[in-house]
Amino acid sequence: MSTLGIVKRTIVRADAAAVEKLGRFGVATIHEAMGRVGLMKPYMRPVYRGARICGTAVTVLLQPGDNWMMHVAAEQIQAGDVVVAACTSENEDGFFGDLLATSFQARGARGLIIDGGVRDVDELERMGFPVFSKAIHAKGTIKATLGSVNIPVVCAGAIVNPGDVVVADVDGVVVVPAALAQTVADAAEKRESFEGEKRAKLAAGVLGLDMYKMREPLAAAGLKYID
Amino acid sequence: MSTLGIVKRTIVRADAAAVEKLGRFGVATIHEAMGRVGLMKPYMRPVYRGARICGTAVTVLLQPGDNWMMHVAAEQIQAGDVVVAACTSENEDGFFGDLLATSFQARGARGLIIDGGVRDVDELERMGFPVFSKAIHAKGTIKATLGSVNIPVVCAGAIVNPGDVVVADVDGVVVVPAALAQTVADAAEKRESFEGEKRAKLAAGVLGLDMYKMREPLAAAGLKYID
Amino acid sequence: MSTLGIVKRTIVRADAAAVEKLGRFGVATIHEAMGRVGLMKPYMRPVYRGARICGTAVTVLLQPGDNWMMHVAAEQIQAGDVVVAACTSENEDGFFGDLLATSFQARGARGLIIDGGVRDVDELERMGFPVFSKAIHAKGTIKATLGSVNIPVVCAGAIVNPGDVVVADVDGVVVVPAALAQTVADAAEKRESFEGEKRAKLAAGVLGLDMYKMREPLAAAGLKYID
Amino acid sequence: MSTLGIVKRTIVRADAAAVEKLGRFGVATIHEAMGRVGLMKPYMRPVYRGARICGTAVTVLLQPGDNWMMHVAAEQIQAGDVVVAACTSENEDGFFGDLLATSFQARGARGLIIDGGVRDVDELERMGFPVFSKAIHAKGTIKATLGSVNIPVVCAGAIVNPGDVVVADVDGVVVVPAALAQTVADAAEKRESFEGEKRAKLAAGVLGLDMYKMREPLAAAGLKYID
Amino acid sequence: MSTLGIVKRTIVRADAAAVEKLGRFGVATIHEAMGRVGLMKPYMRPVYRGARICGTAVTVLLQPGDNWMMHVAAEQIQAGDVVVAACTSENEDGFFGDLLATSFQARGARGLIIDGGVRDVDELERMGFPVFSKAIHAKGTIKATLGSVNIPVVCAGAIVNPGDVVVADVDGVVVVPAALAQTVADAAEKRESFEGEKRAKLAAGVLGLDMYKMREPLAAAGLKYID
Amino acid sequence: MSTLGIVKRTIVRADAAAVEKLGRFGVATIHEAMGRVGLMKPYMRPVYRGARICGTAVTVLLQPGDNWMMHVAAEQIQAGDVVVAACTSENEDGFFGDLLATSFQARGARGLIIDGGVRDVDELERMGFPVFSKAIHAKGTIKATLGSVNIPVVCAGAIVNPGDVVVADVDGVVVVPAALAQTVADAAEKRESFEGEKRAKLAAGVLGLDMYKMREPLAAAGLKYID
Repeated sequence: MSTLGIVKRTIVRADAAAVEKLGRFGVATIHEAMGRVGLMKPYMRPVYRGARICGTAVTVLLQPGDNWMMHVAAEQIQAGDVVVAACTSENEDGFFGDLLATSFQARGARGLIIDGGVRDVDELERMGFPVFSKAIHAKGTIKATLGSVNIPVVCAGAIVNPGDVVVADVDGVVVVPAALAQTVADAAEKRESFEGEKRAKLAAGVLGLDMYKMREPLAAAGLKYID
Repeated sequence: MSTLGIVKRTIVRADAAAVEKLGRFGVATIHEAMGRVGLMKPYMRPVYRGARICGTAVTVLLQPGDNWMMHVAAEQIQAGDVVVAACTSENEDGFFGDLLATSFQARGARGLIIDGGVRDVDELERMGFPVFSKAIHAKGTIKATLGSVNIPVVCAGAIVNPGDVVVADVDGVVVVPAALAQTVADAAEKRESFEGEKRAKLAAGVLGLDMYKMREPLAAAGLKYID
Repeated sequence: MSTLGIVKRTIVRADAAAVEKLGRFGVATIHEAMGRVGLMKPYMRPVYRGARICGTAVTVLLQPGDNWMMHVAAEQIQAGDVVVAACTSENEDGFFGDLLATSFQARGARGLIIDGGVRDVDELERMGFPVFSKAIHAKGTIKATLGSVNIPVVCAGAIVNPGDVVVADVDGVVVVPAALAQTVADAAEKRESFEGEKRAKLAAGVLGLDMYKMREPLAAAGLKYID
Repeated sequence: MSTLGIVKRTIVRADAAAVEKLGRFGVATIHEAMGRVGLMKPYMRPVYRGARICGTAVTVLLQPGDNWMMHVAAEQIQAGDVVVAACTSENEDGFFGDLLATSFQARGARGLIIDGGVRDVDELERMGFPVFSKAIHAKGTIKATLGSVNIPVVCAGAIVNPGDVVVADVDGVVVVPAALAQTVADAAEKRESFEGEKRAKLAAGVLGLDMYKMREPLAAAGLKYID
Repeated sequence: MSTLGIVKRTIVRADAAAVEKLGRFGVATIHEAMGRVGLMKPYMRPVYRGARICGTAVTVLLQPGDNWMMHVAAEQIQAGDVVVAACTSENEDGFFGDLLATSFQARGARGLIIDGGVRDVDELERMGFPVFSKAIHAKGTIKATLGSVNIPVVCAGAIVNPGDVVVADVDGVVVVPAALAQTVADAAEKRESFEGEKRAKLAAGVLGLDMYKMREPLAAAGLKYID
Repeated sequence: MSTLGIVKRTIVRADAAAVEKLGRFGVATIHEAMGRVGLMKPYMRPVYRGARICGTAVTVLLQPGDNWMMHVAAEQIQAGDVVVAACTSENEDGFFGDLLATSFQARGARGLIIDGGVRDVDELERMGFPVFSKAIHAKGTIKATLGSVNIPVVCAGAIVNPGDVVVADVDGVVVVPAALAQTVADAAEKRESFEGEKRAKLAAGVLGLDMYKMREPLAAAGLKYID
């Protein structure tokens, strides 16, 4: 009955073209394009400056202090995937380091999103293997208890299904359901196309109050100007 | 009766020369020169390495998940101001991004201090618009509820009155009441002038124990040396 | 009866050659070589990118808001030491800045590990004086209450005895008991020598599942593959 | 495309008899019976001592600082339901108080699980309306932005689908998928039936080492006894 | 120039009748009556169940690890006062115990609000001296550094001026500026008078959706009902 | 070389009479009597109101998510012991519940101090088995990895050696080294004998300012009274 101890080999990945298109936009834009849902919690941070990821999720459910399932996940990685690792309880041990990164990279993984700790951060930067994590921690882990691979997981507060698109940059991590990838990519593109004009106006000194026609609703809400 | 829903247009900014002089000193020095008060809590961090701000405060009181007042504040900015944003409850949503930064910068703002989250961090760095915040978070906000502009606020534990001088660097954020700006700037200058000599002595191997004449009070307090 | 108010002048430092050898390995490797103990908690972070320390511990027990004992500690520093500062209660005040760093550096200290706050971070980076701390905070401290120097302390969850080897890098901070320094250094070397071969195999696409012969124990534990 | 702004009226609730049976077991037992999954994070605490809930989930997704959807949810409550409220970002405002509790109770709700704050705690206890929350906070909320009702939500780290069984007691909160309710209830019963005998043996002084036959595997793992 | 080292003996306390009237209402009601401002952060909790305070503030600014100013404050207490203690940096030491409580109680104090730690909690309950604090901690403090008494302080995020009314109950702590005490008390009374009718309707099964006429604005905002 | 995988069977427990005497004093008093050291961090809280422990430490070092060593520890318990459990990394899983409590109680244990989570809290209260922990969490643990029993551990920031006296009450947890038990008990007694007279004076309205002769040193430190 448990969802532990399972590896799903066949998953439906988001359409490759849609993934590539999503990769052209920032996390904030994609989150807005989705209707303001899908973000992980803001404690998820890049382990080195400049890290950025866009790919399809291979999910892993870990046990605290145990990274056995990371090795099981490696076999399920295809080129263009991002490994998304959750844990059955809060734990910041260093589940991942340069050896696993070497293996994941060899399998074509584009990075790792982990609601836990990682180590060998200098090597990860040198390898160009981007990681977003809750913590950096040298603490080693064991290989003793089963978790699962490619089941739906909750990672840093967001539901991630295998095959979903995960985009991460300095502003955070967003999850786009596989079925919505193309629609969200198109909405992001549209949204961004509007921004240039707005930016130009604001740069020229036009106020958002006027550009967005806020003065009337603000007055209606009761805003008072005093001297 | 409520202090919400108010925009104060006329504020008394600290003397411009005093502000410029304060800008030559570090936050730690200014905090010491004020008698060790005025610091925000240490969770306020620069969103990019090298960010530094010194200017006069335009204050904003936000509601959780709502950045409407940021647009209202934009109109109150004068060249040399720093926007200082507090919130009625703890919330790390991304109240601020590159579009608002463009607007603030066009109005002459020197940066933002916000007890909440911001996004578009790469663009902020590219624009050279320094921000000190509690969090980085892509989460978008709405425009529905009134807060206030240019009322006294508590930002990250410090009282900020509109017109006060706010100085921020890698060591933190300090608030200097407008009326004390010149006095504090002078005291900071004096303090710093003493440091060169001390540094030279310490670099030459003189111990603080001797330079500050601590041996006697330490012995009086009961310090025991054992082998 | 209290352990406060004591300065131990004679401590047994770890063997110098073993310290130098430990300095060639990363914190994660040394922690593994010790049998996965000795790490400080992961909230201890370098105050600037690239900081790295290896040396013998001079320990300090501070009181909250008080850095008097740092000056007492300065006198006990010998070339190659690292100051390790704990506090009798949780406090993030800025116990340490560029003047103390100048003094410590003049005495031959290689860095500071502090379960509290520090300031003057830009100057510390400029001086090349590495610090790992719980916080960055401009808050000044007083000099009024006795703590101790060179007694065993608990720093960020780890027991540190004076003379122990402390190694810090981007992955965290590890403490090696003085008596174990050579053994751990040798074990770290051995461990690292095995990693090259593993890395090459993994880079070539060999799976950890096969390299570590995990398939059988995973099956025995009940792992199920489904499609 | 967004999942916001939706109210699902028809949901499939777990079988009533299974729900009642689950209500006879503790959260720890049910979590074990499910294979050690389904728990919310431990920051979810009862707002008064003795609170206990078992019922079927009506889910709500709130916006920070806004409890509009709580009123929308009230209409979807049936006798035996538990309202489970998540929020699009972390926020501890007081989304819920005695008036909403009166309404929920009148509709037959058995309690509230909320990843946020509540108020009027004394009245809630007097009414006998159990609540498990992240915080207690008097902070009022507005009614301005749409969330959703009866969509899958992540509450305190656990996925909750409308109709799932939620059980809460002093040990925490567990979510049982509706389809598994009967199976889990049976497994919990079986598990509990074994405990009496174990407890009697342990109370008589038999060691777990012997009762669970751990001595051999401990020795095999390398455990050493020294004097 | 510093605000440290000052004791203000003459403060303007809120009108006694208004204070007594405010004491009849809960914190949530008063906070609403003030227009949703004035609350301390929700980490401020009663140290024993049932604690409740209403009185006029005598403020204290403490230094970390130092409770000297508590003794200075004792002399400034008049019957009906509440001591409100802030600290120049975050510190959870036990600044207050049963001896100080005995002294405060003898002077007529109604309780203590402290953004720090306290101890002797069992005795405080036995004495009936209510305390709301950030922490319970046995850690003792020293008497070495000046803070201030009866200056404006920031306590748990709220500005408190000496003489303000402070009300604390299980829902939190709210600060009412002295000049607004009567107005807020009247507004709280009015607000509460409306609640009885609402409660009766909700208890009878009327939905908030109908009672507050929310259906139309919800539809206008785009809410969709699906089956 | 590792300190993991060891069970020390012979430990030197503090003198029984001294332990009993220490049991008559509160944690705050004992901590003061020791010279203000020995406290655990204030996040350690009793799992039920009224819990209180005094006994000699049997120490356990756990691995995250694994309670195997608890069973090993049970065999080392003698009447009058307290089990003190630390973990190699931060983890709040429920390492302990009513079955282990039954076993510990049968062996004569007086309670548990654990830097982690526990469950079955209602049963623990019913059994009268006091526990002080970092968290309450229903999360189950496995039995797969070796830790140690009766080695020195760091529990919630305090060093605990096997045989030390551990006293816990509502104010926190304090550790008294075995060799100091009698001296500290005597000092605590002496300290408490002074408190009655002080309390009587303070209750009669005498100020601490006068009783402790603080007025002169305050003036010397520069305290200014203003009106």
